[in-house]
Amino acid sequence: MTGLERLSLNQMTTKNWSVAEAVDGCVRAGVPAIGLWREPVAETGLAAVAKLVADAGLRVSSLCRGGFLTTGEPAALDDNRRAIDEAATLGAPCLVLVVGGLPPGSKDLPGARQRVLDALAELAPYAGERGVRLGLEALHPMYCADRAVLSTLRQALDWAERFPAAQVGVVVDTFHLWWDPEVFAQIGRAGERIAAYQVCDFLTPLPADVLLGRGMMGDGHVDFRPFTEAVHAAGYRGDIEVELFNADVWATPGDEVLATMKRRFAELVV
Amino acid sequence: MTGLERLSLNQMTTKNWSVAEAVDGCVRAGVPAIGLWREPVAETGLAAVAKLVADAGLRVSSLCRGGFLTTGEPAALDDNRRAIDEAATLGAPCLVLVVGGLPPGSKDLPGARQRVLDALAELAPYAGERGVRLGLEALHPMYCADRAVLSTLRQALDWAERFPAAQVGVVVDTFHLWWDPEVFAQIGRAGERIAAYQVCDFLTPLPADVLLGRGMMGDGHVDFRPFTEAVHAAGYRGDIEVELFNADVWATPGDEVLATMKRRFAELVV
Repeated sequence: MTGLERLSLNQMTTKNWSVAEAVDGCVRAGVPAIGLWREPVAETGLAAVAKLVADAGLRVSSLCRGGFLTTGEPAALDDNRRAIDEAATLGAPCLVLVVGGLPPGSKDLPGARQRVLDALAELAPYAGERGVRLGLEALHPMYCADRAVLSTLRQALDWAERFPAAQVGVVVDTFHLWWDPEVFAQIGRAGERIAAYQVCDFLTPLPADVLLGRGMMGDGHVDFRPFTEAVHAAGYRGDIEVELFNADVWATPGDEVLATMKRRFAELVV
Repeated sequence: MTGLERLSLNQMTTKNWSVAEAVDGCVRAGVPAIGLWREPVAETGLAAVAKLVADAGLRVSSLCRGGFLTTGEPAALDDNRRAIDEAATLGAPCLVLVVGGLPPGSKDLPGARQRVLDALAELAPYAGERGVRLGLEALHPMYCADRAVLSTLRQALDWAERFPAAQVGVVVDTFHLWWDPEVFAQIGRAGERIAAYQVCDFLTPLPADVLLGRGMMGDGHVDFRPFTEAVHAAGYRGDIEVELFNADVWATPGDEVLATMKRRFAELVV
């Protein structure tokens, strides 16, 4: 056993590949699972993507992403219901939610957080009925203003535990959580709530666009194996996604990226 | 009462001013306190600075900064003892500690944190004997790798509470802590441990050098008054420092900066 049987390519890692190219790349590299994003899925067509991954024998580890629920606009709920439907069609066990930042001009952080909870109460049963679990992703606190008012695993669990575990889980992403002094205790608390496990390194200096500081494992500061051991001890046996947002990686041919990814994954993650 | 009687200019806000210029600027603007940094103090001379602030009738709200204790090198302890001595000479009640990031090449975050605790055990009694309190400053988690492995107020209190309150306290800095969903609960817990209160806004997009995202109050996402109310409810009655690191502010004439600072402070902070 090499550990590679649980490796999943999150397609953002090879952003310049279409879904079909990413599926083919996974097959060539022997990567058994893929994490999909809604926008490229829509470009190819939902049914066509479902057929592509099924024909290739790949698992869909997650669909990214729903969320952006902090404005309280009904359209956001509609869009998230569509995302849940798409996840169900694709056989993705988890729809990753990036909950949204402060609404433009607002400084009401508690209010924004409350609106996410209100929206989850609407969406959780809808997801559960379709066999999709909502995965609350705590984003690094540097994104609190503009991406996600959900910033720690503790906070994600406080929210998730208001709902049945089959409806709402949490995403453990090393880039977002590695700094947290209580992250391992919270992973232990999470147990069956862990809906997805994503690995990615934290680079310094952060690039000018801080969204792109997500580096290949081994290029940054994260010690991965304690995370893998903690999610394993908590009972997680699902796929492990590699999800990078990185201009240098995107400029590298996809097959090379997958070769590096496989090597680093085996060396550093599992 | 305007609240301005507790306003302190952290001299980093007017980085291009010497200590003498900053002292004169505070006197002109009616700002009654100043937070000093070791490097500009050394340029002017410690005794000369002590005389300057005393002659001007200013309080010294804090001295920045000690810390950088994660490598375990004895020289760091010696340097921190000198910083404590300087704080005592200046009459600063608090030496702000930025504890340091991961040592170069290391991914051992728990080890780095333990070395800070070991160093604090050496430094805390030394500080207490000289009437200086060490102020543990939790820095924003985006600085965990390269500046401070201390990232939340909870963690700062977990560490501080190992020592007498007269020796080790915590710094509440809005820029670093505003995102934390439990920050107000932790401020309540902190009580007499609050050694300094620093205000600064969190800007997005973060500038290319993320150290310079510290903006003037009102220019970013922070809702200040709940912080001021929470530190007041916790019992803090000390000075409130305005500490910005911001290229645009540094390019503005200091007297203009102080005028804006006073206005925003009255409007948004107290």
